[in-house]
Amino acid sequence: MTARSHDQLGRGFYAILDLEACGSRPILDVATALLSVHPVAIQVRAKRQSARELYETTLAIKSLAVQARCPLIVNDRLDVALAAGANGVHLGQDDLPLAHARKLVPPNFSIGISTHAREEARHAELGGATLIGFGPIFATRTKENPSPVQGLLALAEVVSTVSIPVVAIGGITPSNARDVARTGCAAATSIAGVLQSDDPARAAAAIAAAFSR
Amino acid sequence: MTARSHDQLGRGFYAILDLEACGSRPILDVATALLSVHPVAIQVRAKRQSARELYETTLAIKSLAVQARCPLIVNDRLDVALAAGANGVHLGQDDLPLAHARKLVPPNFSIGISTHAREEARHAELGGATLIGFGPIFATRTKENPSPVQGLLALAEVVSTVSIPVVAIGGITPSNARDVARTGCAAATSIAGVLQSDDPARAAAAIAAAFSR
Repeated sequence: MTARSHDQLGRGFYAILDLEACGSRPILDVATALLSVHPVAIQVRAKRQSARELYETTLAIKSLAVQARCPLIVNDRLDVALAAGANGVHLGQDDLPLAHARKLVPPNFSIGISTHAREEARHAELGGATLIGFGPIFATRTKENPSPVQGLLALAEVVSTVSIPVVAIGGITPSNARDVARTGCAAATSIAGVLQSDDPARAAAAIAAAFSR
Repeated sequence: MTARSHDQLGRGFYAILDLEACGSRPILDVATALLSVHPVAIQVRAKRQSARELYETTLAIKSLAVQARCPLIVNDRLDVALAAGANGVHLGQDDLPLAHARKLVPPNFSIGISTHAREEARHAELGGATLIGFGPIFATRTKENPSPVQGLLALAEVVSTVSIPVVAIGGITPSNARDVARTGCAAATSIAGVLQSDDPARAAAAIAAAFSR
């Protein structure tokens, strides 16, 4: 796969294809829409599906991602990521410990870590993470048990603390994406705001545009 | 870990430590009870826990399993099995495909496959499975969507079809365990019948005894 490596992660929109958030829209149509805005990566996330379903969905999205030369990331399931030949995994604080995940993957395999505090971000970088998710930046209704809102200043602090790319998450919209981009973070993402909008590609493009101005 | 390899899987009781089925009993107490009957293996299963919780539980049970020289198996989560240094993984038909799982593990790593028909069992053996789960042998109320009951004759057929160990599952009790053992299967297991009995060690020992007579 000739995708950009994580060292060359671009700036812009980080796509999260949350299968549950897609509702009745066909997954591959949503993936195609997200990839049309040239996201810095596309992450597949499915908390309620079996490993087999996630594996097969990931394989289907992989062919689209390869065509788009977009890195493909799998949320949580490192085994599925490896089996499907994805470029990386994204782990939350409730997922496999980073140190142990790092031992199971090839050196160029990307491991993103969700963080909610500057110390977590620093710890993740030291532990071998190649990307940090940080948030929630603004209030969000997507998560059932959201962490405390971090705000733009905390985001800027994290960006200046770690040297790996930081992806901002949580309550990000086309309206506030420019402020988010100004912190120097590599990318921003939005799940419900994109996947549940009338036009996912347009919503994603609006966030991406904030990083190119 | 000096546990028996899968090639030397003993005959007797195959312990499944289903964390949800343990109810309010402390997990490590239940694990200790199950290991006291010298099971052929102990499998940790937790469908509703996070990967982090399953990982930490598996590590805690690993130290007990090592002491008991009992192989430790993790259900479904191959990544957790590898990270925790377990001896193997057990995969259902909805889990990662066997062929892809096999590529991710060292040669002596055990991969058990749940099967519900002779063709599935044969296919699993050809694909590199080191153990077959087969059932349900009898009617069971544990699974929400149980497969059709297979019966003892189908079990005997599977045992004669594959050359790897077969573990019988589904509705097995101390009363019918002797009939199960007579089919030549390597082991039998029971989840609710053991974990939800008044005395898990005694229920497990009764099934194990059917294999030693």
